[in-house]
Amino acid sequence: MKAISAVTAAVLSCSLLTSCASVPTQQETKPKNIIYMIGDGMGMAHLTAYRHYKNSTKQSIGLGAQAVPQTLFDQHFVGVASTLPDDDTLVTDSAAGATALSSGEKTYNGAIALDNDKTPTLTLIEKAKELGMLTGTVSTSQITHATPASFWAHNVSRKNENQIADAAFDDRIEGEFKTDLLLGGGKKFLIREDRDISEEFQQSGWQYTDQLTQLDKLTTLPALGLFADKGLGYAIDNPQLPNRLQVMTEKALELLDQNNPNGFFVMVEGSQIDWCSHANDIACAMEEMKDFEQTLATVLEFAKKDGNTLVVLTADHSTGGLTVGANKLYKWLPDLVHQVNASAQVLSDKLLKGADVETLWNQYIEFPLTKDQVATLTELQKQGDTWALQAGIVKITADKTFTGWTTTGHTGEDVGVIAFGPNSEQFRGFQDNTDLAKKLFNLLQ
Amino acid sequence: MKAISAVTAAVLSCSLLTSCASVPTQQETKPKNIIYMIGDGMGMAHLTAYRHYKNSTKQSIGLGAQAVPQTLFDQHFVGVASTLPDDDTLVTDSAAGATALSSGEKTYNGAIALDNDKTPTLTLIEKAKELGMLTGTVSTSQITHATPASFWAHNVSRKNENQIADAAFDDRIEGEFKTDLLLGGGKKFLIREDRDISEEFQQSGWQYTDQLTQLDKLTTLPALGLFADKGLGYAIDNPQLPNRLQVMTEKALELLDQNNPNGFFVMVEGSQIDWCSHANDIACAMEEMKDFEQTLATVLEFAKKDGNTLVVLTADHSTGGLTVGANKLYKWLPDLVHQVNASAQVLSDKLLKGADVETLWNQYIEFPLTKDQVATLTELQKQGDTWALQAGIVKITADKTFTGWTTTGHTGEDVGVIAFGPNSEQFRGFQDNTDLAKKLFNLLQ
Repeated sequence: MKAISAVTAAVLSCSLLTSCASVPTQQETKPKNIIYMIGDGMGMAHLTAYRHYKNSTKQSIGLGAQAVPQTLFDQHFVGVASTLPDDDTLVTDSAAGATALSSGEKTYNGAIALDNDKTPTLTLIEKAKELGMLTGTVSTSQITHATPASFWAHNVSRKNENQIADAAFDDRIEGEFKTDLLLGGGKKFLIREDRDISEEFQQSGWQYTDQLTQLDKLTTLPALGLFADKGLGYAIDNPQLPNRLQVMTEKALELLDQNNPNGFFVMVEGSQIDWCSHANDIACAMEEMKDFEQTLATVLEFAKKDGNTLVVLTADHSTGGLTVGANKLYKWLPDLVHQVNASAQVLSDKLLKGADVETLWNQYIEFPLTKDQVATLTELQKQGDTWALQAGIVKITADKTFTGWTTTGHTGEDVGVIAFGPNSEQFRGFQDNTDLAKKLFNLLQ
Repeated sequence: MKAISAVTAAVLSCSLLTSCASVPTQQETKPKNIIYMIGDGMGMAHLTAYRHYKNSTKQSIGLGAQAVPQTLFDQHFVGVASTLPDDDTLVTDSAAGATALSSGEKTYNGAIALDNDKTPTLTLIEKAKELGMLTGTVSTSQITHATPASFWAHNVSRKNENQIADAAFDDRIEGEFKTDLLLGGGKKFLIREDRDISEEFQQSGWQYTDQLTQLDKLTTLPALGLFADKGLGYAIDNPQLPNRLQVMTEKALELLDQNNPNGFFVMVEGSQIDWCSHANDIACAMEEMKDFEQTLATVLEFAKKDGNTLVVLTADHSTGGLTVGANKLYKWLPDLVHQVNASAQVLSDKLLKGADVETLWNQYIEFPLTKDQVATLTELQKQGDTWALQAGIVKITADKTFTGWTTTGHTGEDVGVIAFGPNSEQFRGFQDNTDLAKKLFNLLQ
């Protein structure tokens, strides 16, 4: 079903790409498996910043500029994608972004796999399931969050997470579940007073666990893992298991790799790059990038061994307006970013419970506060506004490390596209985010 | 000299690129001519912003999100380049950036084609001249500015512009000038009390003009054009001839295309994208991007007609920490950017000469000031600080259009790489800025 001639592949590639001076001439069949990775909020600046973060320690800014090792993102970088939604804002939210990536359709901000007329869009997971593939989503957000949801649910608003949880169980294709695997957070939305959807899944033959440390309880598909009420904790706040996306993805690939002749399609989201960036928390964002790169390592290892798996990685948008350098001086200091050992969210929670500013700071952060900074944070602590306090904390880190942020929302710059495996050359160059889905639909058919 | 077998080309391509899953198999010879375009300060955000600017008018934000036309940058986008200098700052200035791009060597900020030990680096123009090619630089900055200078001069500091002007005439390769063509600004540095280098050039057989409207006086090489004391005026402030880089480049290509069997190498710089971005002046930067894209149109038309010309376009770094969207809301408003019809520099000059704030604003800018904004600008006008006044002006535009800026300096994000013509596939994917020069050196040999 999925093998086509080299000529057809070349024509497809050329009709979809704007620029196709060099059409691939080697024999290349469509991939059996597709792994679609989305770094939520991961702008181009995040890719550069993470390269330097990876190449530095608490003590130094790396090996010298002559020898900056490439990240896995760099090694397989092929192009960029525009991200604007279907309105006049030019800046997308995660729902419209995910709908573009899941369905190839531009829509309004907030829509879960509906077009601008609120008609459901066909998603890649729905198409894959129609073709007899195994399907699933893995995310560090709750499974009902905008990005995973846009692959298997349809809703007028991302905010309707209970309805989206219902859809995970209720929406079927010819009586069959759309997915075989759902890993992430979201107990709050699936296990409710009115309905325990995790129980309904189990009664329908799904394996279930709510412990990340007990992933080995999942031995076969279908399988559900819900590891937090909402999103999983930040990597930076989980020194025991910062690479939780990698661990979930290892399990997902183990379960999906079943000699199914039709292969599998799985979406893997690094959800919290976005959340840390909304908070303008650079240390938090860099640790999320680390988990996401480690997950890519796991995925590439699988794809290289398998030989017939296409990996496409992108972002839905950039978050925070991150820039590598800020405030006139020509420098960025990732060594000092490494000296921050907790998220601003955890720090502000502890401060609002009465912790002493300077004691807490010195417990988690390895560069000292000035007297003025102690006074500022103490005043914000007294005021008791969580967001203002978090903003006060991250401003200190941003100023110290010369990290730039322009918003606590999203921005509209193009995002990177990373690809590996058969037909990965189709994703080269500039494209719209909807083109990524359209190319994947073509590779599924 | 410059034709090699397809096998050699494929091996070169693969040894230089990190990822080379698909090696080009068609016969491809080295290019005869190379046109190297540098958008100074042109970050990835500038490319996205300009796409939307181009697709909008004073009245609307374009045709709707479904139909954003691609720019020429998009159509030939092939990859990205890292830009860090050879120190621990991770953020380059234009001199170290230009030295990396001209010589393939990382160096310290401020260096003009010297390495970190202050040893002169071999530049692409020097190599091209050794190989018998015609060479030149075209820029909207003075010809002695960091980027053009780094292609044919060597100096410990970019600030020594008189010494750099001397080098343009004095430094030779086996008695011959390094360049055949120098177009840009810089009369102040070449025509001095102690020395008139423009006169010395003419006495050595160079044609000369200092009028952009009299470019037809240049009929043969060698030729010098100096069209301003320092840099040429901003595009936004020159409604009669905003596309001055395009006009100079048309003349350059006409003069360089001489049936020289060894071809030509020319560097074309959109210098003032950087300057507008240092000022955080989005309208100014967008009009510079427009001239730069129009110049690329001229270059691509030549390259397509010629068939044996390689075009490589990149940036030395990003300036200003530009983001497309800012301040929480999910939007960017290029229609309002179009309503700004003068640079902040021109506006502040007029205000400091006594112009009435509101009258001047309404003369040049099509959205009105609030009363508070009038008061703020009037106060800044009284204080008389040029930079503070310019900052006050651009803050109003940035806030109104949701344009983000994080610095009046540079930032360290990777920049885009655009390529067209024979061997352009060598520039695909991620690479360091020095790799761009190294690949071009290989294509020269």
